[in-house]
Amino acid sequence: MLINLESERYCAVIEYDGTLFHGYQIQPDVRTVQGSIEKTLTKIMKVFTRVSVAGRTDAGVHATGQVIAFDAVWRHSTDDLRRALNSVLPHDIFVKKLVTVLPDFSPRYAAIQRSYRYVIVNDTSFSVFERFYSHYIRSKLNLALMREASTHLIGTYDFSSFGKPPQIGGHAVRRIMAINWFAKNNKIFFDITANAFLYHMVRNIVGTLVLVGLNRLIPDDVRKILLAKDLKYSGPTAPAQGLYLMKVVYPNFIISG
Amino acid sequence: MLINLESERYCAVIEYDGTLFHGYQIQPDVRTVQGSIEKTLTKIMKVFTRVSVAGRTDAGVHATGQVIAFDAVWRHSTDDLRRALNSVLPHDIFVKKLVTVLPDFSPRYAAIQRSYRYVIVNDTSFSVFERFYSHYIRSKLNLALMREASTHLIGTYDFSSFGKPPQIGGHAVRRIMAINWFAKNNKIFFDITANAFLYHMVRNIVGTLVLVGLNRLIPDDVRKILLAKDLKYSGPTAPAQGLYLMKVVYPNFIISG
Repeated sequence: MLINLESERYCAVIEYDGTLFHGYQIQPDVRTVQGSIEKTLTKIMKVFTRVSVAGRTDAGVHATGQVIAFDAVWRHSTDDLRRALNSVLPHDIFVKKLVTVLPDFSPRYAAIQRSYRYVIVNDTSFSVFERFYSHYIRSKLNLALMREASTHLIGTYDFSSFGKPPQIGGHAVRRIMAINWFAKNNKIFFDITANAFLYHMVRNIVGTLVLVGLNRLIPDDVRKILLAKDLKYSGPTAPAQGLYLMKVVYPNFIISG
Repeated sequence: MLINLESERYCAVIEYDGTLFHGYQIQPDVRTVQGSIEKTLTKIMKVFTRVSVAGRTDAGVHATGQVIAFDAVWRHSTDDLRRALNSVLPHDIFVKKLVTVLPDFSPRYAAIQRSYRYVIVNDTSFSVFERFYSHYIRSKLNLALMREASTHLIGTYDFSSFGKPPQIGGHAVRRIMAINWFAKNNKIFFDITANAFLYHMVRNIVGTLVLVGLNRLIPDDVRKILLAKDLKYSGPTAPAQGLYLMKVVYPNFIISG
């Protein structure tokens, strides 16, 4: 009797609350998103299963549309595998979609576009229940000025002033396609889409634009900071808790968060 | 020169997100609400300051109206002390109100009434961002049946079927003044007020009433469970994450959450 032991490559869109994770990437002795997923897959598949990812997120950063991929031998339907994963995974990780992909699919190298959201609570009153999910700023932010300053960042530039390349010696040229600020109730949302991001780039951009919103910089200063190509000129790195990886886009199919 | 070193007794209404605390009560080597507050007060007052509390909450339980008290020598205004506390406290604890009280005030023994809320997400879709703040139940709950069952619990009874007295040998008679269930969007809220609660009493009542909502018990079974006065007859203890201490009431003045 022949048993089909052919492995398939799977791609999943996952959501996680970053609060209780020491970031995405596996590390010894601490709880990580990668570690939790690999442990779950290894339990279900009964063989160690390595997972690759579109973009590693730092401790405290959340995701609604992170993308991962892994190889597995599974005899049942893809939807059964999704249900099996969700029943074994801890409750702060959830598999939203699961599809099979070509064997050489890399969630990181195949991605052509990433979108992040940053959430600010801008209010005179404070709720502890928003602390792990937003950045609290008491002073009133000037949204019009932050929007104006943001226009200087749209396009293809060397973003060295806002972050470091993930690889040593890598270049810092990235293309920002869109920035959108909007307010709802006492919250301000910052949505940004780029081909890729430097390390801490979203949080450094937000930290700098917030200085504009507080009238401590003028919009044109952001253009000057960009042109300086030196990390020391940007504002403070905004806290991890307000950041969400929303969506990763691929050329032939789109996986949306 | 005479320096006024008279100590005052302070009473505070505090809010906390229970997610990253190992409960209220101080324990060695882990992060607790009491430990964080005493550390903050000790830093501000430069002398060890013990805090007493209305009701200890378990790991993962939240509070919007917990009440604490402590003695301190403070030369500035009460509002200055509130601001000092909030600037030193970690961001998942917040002092909402601070007043001076009589020297013998006990937040626990003076309390005449406590209110808790329990939050259930009752939906076919699942969000990781609600996991630390609610109990997720996929199957549709019958709210009318849960309301009907709740009426059997209003009044003064021996609630041994729903919890243990906090002291060994203590009696289990408590008076429930009100239970209110209401639904909003995909959430169901359970509000309960009693003179005092047994250990795990709210979570055991919710766990039992949920069985009614799932048609696994009928409303009259709740009356029978109550009369049995034995913890083994009640339903499973609902998870800590859905529970909020909302309000503690005192005879001469009300501190509301």
